[in-house]
Amino acid sequence: MTYKTPFNKPYLTGKETHYMYDAVSTGKISGNGKYTKMCQDFFEKQYGFGKCMLTTSCTDALEMAAILIDIKSGDEVIMPSYTFVSTANAFILRGAKVVFLDSRKDHPGMNEDEIESLITEKTKAIVLVHYAGVACDMDKIMDVANKHNLYVIEDAAQAVDSYYTNKHGEKKALGSIGHLAAFSFHETKNIISGEGGMLVINDSQFSDRAEIIWEKGTNRSSFFRGEVDKYGWVDMGSSFLPSEIIASFLWAQLENLKDIQNQRKKIWNLYYEGISEWANKNNIQLPYVPKFATNNAHMFYLVFNSIKDRSKAIEKLKDSSILSVFHYLSLHDSQYYKSKHDGRILGESDRYSNQLLRLPMYYELSNDQVTEVINRLKELKY
Amino acid sequence: MTYKTPFNKPYLTGKETHYMYDAVSTGKISGNGKYTKMCQDFFEKQYGFGKCMLTTSCTDALEMAAILIDIKSGDEVIMPSYTFVSTANAFILRGAKVVFLDSRKDHPGMNEDEIESLITEKTKAIVLVHYAGVACDMDKIMDVANKHNLYVIEDAAQAVDSYYTNKHGEKKALGSIGHLAAFSFHETKNIISGEGGMLVINDSQFSDRAEIIWEKGTNRSSFFRGEVDKYGWVDMGSSFLPSEIIASFLWAQLENLKDIQNQRKKIWNLYYEGISEWANKNNIQLPYVPKFATNNAHMFYLVFNSIKDRSKAIEKLKDSSILSVFHYLSLHDSQYYKSKHDGRILGESDRYSNQLLRLPMYYELSNDQVTEVINRLKELKY
Repeated sequence: MTYKTPFNKPYLTGKETHYMYDAVSTGKISGNGKYTKMCQDFFEKQYGFGKCMLTTSCTDALEMAAILIDIKSGDEVIMPSYTFVSTANAFILRGAKVVFLDSRKDHPGMNEDEIESLITEKTKAIVLVHYAGVACDMDKIMDVANKHNLYVIEDAAQAVDSYYTNKHGEKKALGSIGHLAAFSFHETKNIISGEGGMLVINDSQFSDRAEIIWEKGTNRSSFFRGEVDKYGWVDMGSSFLPSEIIASFLWAQLENLKDIQNQRKKIWNLYYEGISEWANKNNIQLPYVPKFATNNAHMFYLVFNSIKDRSKAIEKLKDSSILSVFHYLSLHDSQYYKSKHDGRILGESDRYSNQLLRLPMYYELSNDQVTEVINRLKELKY
Repeated sequence: MTYKTPFNKPYLTGKETHYMYDAVSTGKISGNGKYTKMCQDFFEKQYGFGKCMLTTSCTDALEMAAILIDIKSGDEVIMPSYTFVSTANAFILRGAKVVFLDSRKDHPGMNEDEIESLITEKTKAIVLVHYAGVACDMDKIMDVANKHNLYVIEDAAQAVDSYYTNKHGEKKALGSIGHLAAFSFHETKNIISGEGGMLVINDSQFSDRAEIIWEKGTNRSSFFRGEVDKYGWVDMGSSFLPSEIIASFLWAQLENLKDIQNQRKKIWNLYYEGISEWANKNNIQLPYVPKFATNNAHMFYLVFNSIKDRSKAIEKLKDSSILSVFHYLSLHDSQYYKSKHDGRILGESDRYSNQLLRLPMYYELSNDQVTEVINRLKELKY
């Protein structure tokens, strides 16, 4: 079925095919070429990130992180249950046991206050997720991580161009705070390259090894810098780096990042202003952006009071050819993990699984379309 | 340094950017769209492959294979030492112990006769490599695998459009014989997409799970076929599927596969005819294609009598701005694996590491360039 107003429509700035053509015509289309370096430099400079490395997906960036912190069978990793499967899979693949956190009452993001009670002697890392691009409370997380000597990995898949202000009043880009961070450029994100991702290495102890793991476990990067006279197999690794074709596409997006972000924020604000009164009256939960966080307008969601209420909204919008979609199913309650979970009830995560609904959100969404979504919803009484 | 005659030059058929533009303009640029299916169908029909699944690299296809055959810590996998690191890494990442085979005297490919003596109770799979696109002796391998109940995975990274004729006189495409097979479309291969690969599933017991692993451990494919009413986390997995941008590029190549292969074979034959007499006189080993195999003209190599002789040839060609390059360093003797290897001397693998040289080989290599390479080499006396 094709919708008049789809849920997402990948936005093209117009320069993507131009840069792709340029990349292809240089004859260097495998990874780690000119465009890869341009994109990595952009992020390092723009957001104060440590070393940046493009990957073929955010999943791959998380897998690199799991290898870098040397996750082994039996290690425990704490992360939210209300997240994408890749957050967990990357660590499961290395043999970790995943310990799931519940979500916050005011926000689908994870409940930072629960972390400390779940730490055991086996805990090695906290993998936090900046849900909807809205910062977790990083001070709380870094404090508990430092106290217990844990690694912090930011799953910043949705969190490009978003910030956290810490207790000292310093505003820091999401992805610049944990030891490592992972971004996504999947077509559903603000900034896209079809499939694609990036690992950020803020703790420089990981830099050299990251280069090796990225290059299939070889010291090829050292070789090209003239540090060794031939390159060979020095570690485990994989083929994490994307083609220059993908990097050149991403470059066109980065050149237009400001414009993309401004437009998305306009749309987001239109939604918020148009729908708040109705939502409040019907006791429907609105997106929440804590004082310490910014809004990168990745997503506009509503949380209904029941799965039935949500279904009613989905159907209502569908009648006007508008596609709205729910989001994650709690990972702790999945077919794969249910029997491995420790049995704690994660009620908030389940609530968001059953009751959260995402509204259409993309660059080319017109004011009229937003108004129609709002007006159709407002016809509903709960 | 830029060479007048580089070692490789990725060939563009001219339609790549056209199809990429088409993929991008449809707005479906993440994975598993129209072009992905067209490419997969092409391989299934053209070569009699089982289910085909595009991946972001051959490395990723091998990693999928390792997950599919359920490699666990302590399992042993037999493979050649003279191969790319990814052949081994994919299994190392799952905790396997790799047991390395030596190469053949007449060919850098692995010595099939050694396999059986290396099988233990822990052996789970044989990963064979069709070096230079020239078939291993598949009857020998399948017989020993069947006898010992082992999985056979074909690392067919270099082996697109190449065949094996079995003892019954049946000609089968490489990649269609083992339980699983992995192909590469890296820019150095005959058929390219920058970075890219494909998993072939010939044993249908793996088909359903392969779909799940490919889709990040979810049953999303089942969901879209209407077999389940929502999709969730059902297994481990990763993001193995490439963007439609990559698949559309690959499609342009596949449309021109016949032309690409004909041209490469012409070049290969020019080399062979021009250089054989000199090579034979100087006791230099030429490429060997057994009766049961075909030549897909992936590579033209020479094996010199010493590392010094090879260096002399590299320098000689470099003087005329021609780039020739050696190939793998034996994995059993690598910094990473040396201490884990069982100590067997793999003399042939080491010989090819030290003495094999690959000559420039790409679609746009002109007759004059080939002739120049040959003439420069012929000036050498050993």
